[in-house]
Amino acid sequence: MSNITQSRLLAELNTILRFSGLLTGEAVKSRAATFWDNSPMRAKALLRPSSVEQLQQCMRLCHAARQVIVPLGGNTSLAEGTAASADDMVLSLERLNQIEQIDTVSQTVTVQAGVVLQALHEALAAQNWVFPVDLGARGSCTLGGMLATNAGGFGVLVHGMMRTQVLGLEVVLADGSLLSSMHGFLKNNSGYDLKQLFIGSEGTLGIITRAILRIKPALAGRASALLGVERFEQVCELLKHLQSGSGLSAFEVMWPSFWRLNTGEYSSHQSPLAGEHNFYVLLECQASSQAAAEAACCSALEAAFNDGLLQDAVIAQSMAEAQSLWAIREAYEAEQKRFKQIWGFDVSLRIADMQRFAQLLEERLKRLSAAIYLSVYGHLADGNLHLILGGNPPLPETHTVEEVVYQCLAEFGGSISAEHGVGLEKKPWLHLTRNANELHWMRQLKQLFDPHGLLNPGKIFDSEPA
Amino acid sequence: MSNITQSRLLAELNTILRFSGLLTGEAVKSRAATFWDNSPMRAKALLRPSSVEQLQQCMRLCHAARQVIVPLGGNTSLAEGTAASADDMVLSLERLNQIEQIDTVSQTVTVQAGVVLQALHEALAAQNWVFPVDLGARGSCTLGGMLATNAGGFGVLVHGMMRTQVLGLEVVLADGSLLSSMHGFLKNNSGYDLKQLFIGSEGTLGIITRAILRIKPALAGRASALLGVERFEQVCELLKHLQSGSGLSAFEVMWPSFWRLNTGEYSSHQSPLAGEHNFYVLLECQASSQAAAEAACCSALEAAFNDGLLQDAVIAQSMAEAQSLWAIREAYEAEQKRFKQIWGFDVSLRIADMQRFAQLLEERLKRLSAAIYLSVYGHLADGNLHLILGGNPPLPETHTVEEVVYQCLAEFGGSISAEHGVGLEKKPWLHLTRNANELHWMRQLKQLFDPHGLLNPGKIFDSEPA
Repeated sequence: MSNITQSRLLAELNTILRFSGLLTGEAVKSRAATFWDNSPMRAKALLRPSSVEQLQQCMRLCHAARQVIVPLGGNTSLAEGTAASADDMVLSLERLNQIEQIDTVSQTVTVQAGVVLQALHEALAAQNWVFPVDLGARGSCTLGGMLATNAGGFGVLVHGMMRTQVLGLEVVLADGSLLSSMHGFLKNNSGYDLKQLFIGSEGTLGIITRAILRIKPALAGRASALLGVERFEQVCELLKHLQSGSGLSAFEVMWPSFWRLNTGEYSSHQSPLAGEHNFYVLLECQASSQAAAEAACCSALEAAFNDGLLQDAVIAQSMAEAQSLWAIREAYEAEQKRFKQIWGFDVSLRIADMQRFAQLLEERLKRLSAAIYLSVYGHLADGNLHLILGGNPPLPETHTVEEVVYQCLAEFGGSISAEHGVGLEKKPWLHLTRNANELHWMRQLKQLFDPHGLLNPGKIFDSEPA
Repeated sequence: MSNITQSRLLAELNTILRFSGLLTGEAVKSRAATFWDNSPMRAKALLRPSSVEQLQQCMRLCHAARQVIVPLGGNTSLAEGTAASADDMVLSLERLNQIEQIDTVSQTVTVQAGVVLQALHEALAAQNWVFPVDLGARGSCTLGGMLATNAGGFGVLVHGMMRTQVLGLEVVLADGSLLSSMHGFLKNNSGYDLKQLFIGSEGTLGIITRAILRIKPALAGRASALLGVERFEQVCELLKHLQSGSGLSAFEVMWPSFWRLNTGEYSSHQSPLAGEHNFYVLLECQASSQAAAEAACCSALEAAFNDGLLQDAVIAQSMAEAQSLWAIREAYEAEQKRFKQIWGFDVSLRIADMQRFAQLLEERLKRLSAAIYLSVYGHLADGNLHLILGGNPPLPETHTVEEVVYQCLAEFGGSISAEHGVGLEKKPWLHLTRNANELHWMRQLKQLFDPHGLLNPGKIFDSEPA
């Protein structure tokens, strides 16, 4: 296989990376395995190139040595997408962290893959512009990782996922060659749109190094409201109603199971709504000023109330009130306190199927074990539900629980991953969402771009069908 | 190559397509070559399957016989994307024209590829929903063709191109196998997003047969305004200003060369603005009611006027006035009357480069021939300019004119095709926009999905590098 010995490979990498760019031994172990797991990172070495040219040189060398590379972004994967063994080299672009250009006329930003999302938000905010993708891990996730996993978040219903923001992309392939499509405009029908292949491919087809992304003018006004709604059909009707010119920018739906958990005895939050409801909707409207956002939100909700679409509503009267509403949606302390075992799922399905799915799943889980609590919430407009399953032992095996969830989902034609990717964790279930021919062509593409299987191998799917 | 004689191939296709689905001889010739060219269509046969299964059977047979297939949508390609020879079989999905499902809860529509855009618009309008892509050829273009070419149009700045609307896609490959990814939700990070490969690949990788597309609630209010602006920087500032919560849905910019031509002596239109301006901006704002759209438009323009961003403005006071403004933007009679020779270009480049490009190109064209008139306009927010070059003989050769335009564009890193695709027409210039490594990987993908080169061969690029 390899014409190069391991010691020579490390020595040559060390030269390319000028020593400080290559970590081995204790320097690797001193890092955490992942954001969620404090055990020592496992890797033969951690490569930290400071330029794309350095990365290309490393990749050429590793390609010649048939050395497996596991690319790492902010290390916050929720799907074991960056798991590495002691034989792998882990690649971090943490030193490729420059915002190269903010062009407010062309409405683009040129970034290196190692830029942390929050750093981009802050640089743009200083000029009254925004990058419209935002998510909980903003302080650690990198744009390269977000591109490799096609990250989503709260603004997808208006702005789309990462894929929609990408105008230009630069990728280093498994053999070290550069595939650059760094265009800076929205429309470009000049042959195949190669960059689409790499977005969302979880580092298995190439290493994303730079990108040109869309930016948008910042809107000064944001109004948040929390609604209590009786029937699922009304939730959907409300969404449609609010999409009609109200500046709707977020529409989060929480089932009572979620609400009771996160405003109940294990939680520090209290429900600002009197009484119980079958659905809780947390929404945000944006406009050019705070007054305009509040006016648009109020008038839309007034009309919805008159149409009988909602039972109760509170509109945040201050930033602090808005934050306390969103804090309930983003809470996770109650489940941590109440349950020894927690399973999280990130699934998508047609909006029209969501309520039937939630009901059917609850029945099936009850049949499996009375000890499992199912909490349901999510980005309804995106067809995306998050499921938190919690319980205290004795409990069924993880595989059994996953089987019940994913089997139920498959009956509705849903997807096992909405925004978190597949990684290692969801690989056993991928066949429920993607058919044999789709998996065949995924393997063909992997074979085409990475014939030796060196880039993040074993993630998403195995190179041979099971 | 082939184990099947031509006569047997036609006989078997005839059986599969139950006679009425297969046209040959005079029945083919009675059709026009394209929407723009009334000469007889050239093809060995025209295949018109009435089901995906029939199409698969035809493709299997043609694959075995190594028969070239040229897929046809509404036949309005502006880039010779469907040119066929007498040895080719042309494939039309005109009988696969069902809107299978409108799901206003999931906000999706399931369509067959042969559905004409206008038919979809009408079916949705009846339920107060819209499909957000619209373009001039709406009465003839099919959704399959629009997907194969990633069509754009007027609403791209808000809604994106066809690619952004696609949730699910079904494709028949060169060998007749079915690659179905008919998912009906916005977020789906379950492995490679295969459908992206086929969108915009101009029928060279597979035949798009069905799709699940996003739909949106219709907005009842639309306000149009025409502005006169002095400097290009102000045009860009205006765009940013109007993107900040005004419901901006279209932002078209016309250079004086366009305006003089289309409101002058050869035109039936008159400029509603007094005096001349360096830039003309035609914009539209949408809102939930006509009053709200007009109020948002007026207040945004008032603020812009107070900020010194515009010299003059007219806001349409009725539907008829709005239509007469848009009629100028969509006019093409003046160029037809005035010029014997017209060359059209559809290019994209960074917004910040547009004015310098327009000026430099004008200088270069003047140097080439004093007889060439350059008219510039386009979807500025999308980075997309249309160029109309007109003149009366004696004139330079087409190739020489194209060379001047595309060479100038290449200096700004622009794209030779924003929304019209490459087809045959732009193939000689593709290397100016896409680098050698990009072209290499395009060929690799073509080889992977269509190893015998049977699907629309010779379009976009040649199978071997020149």
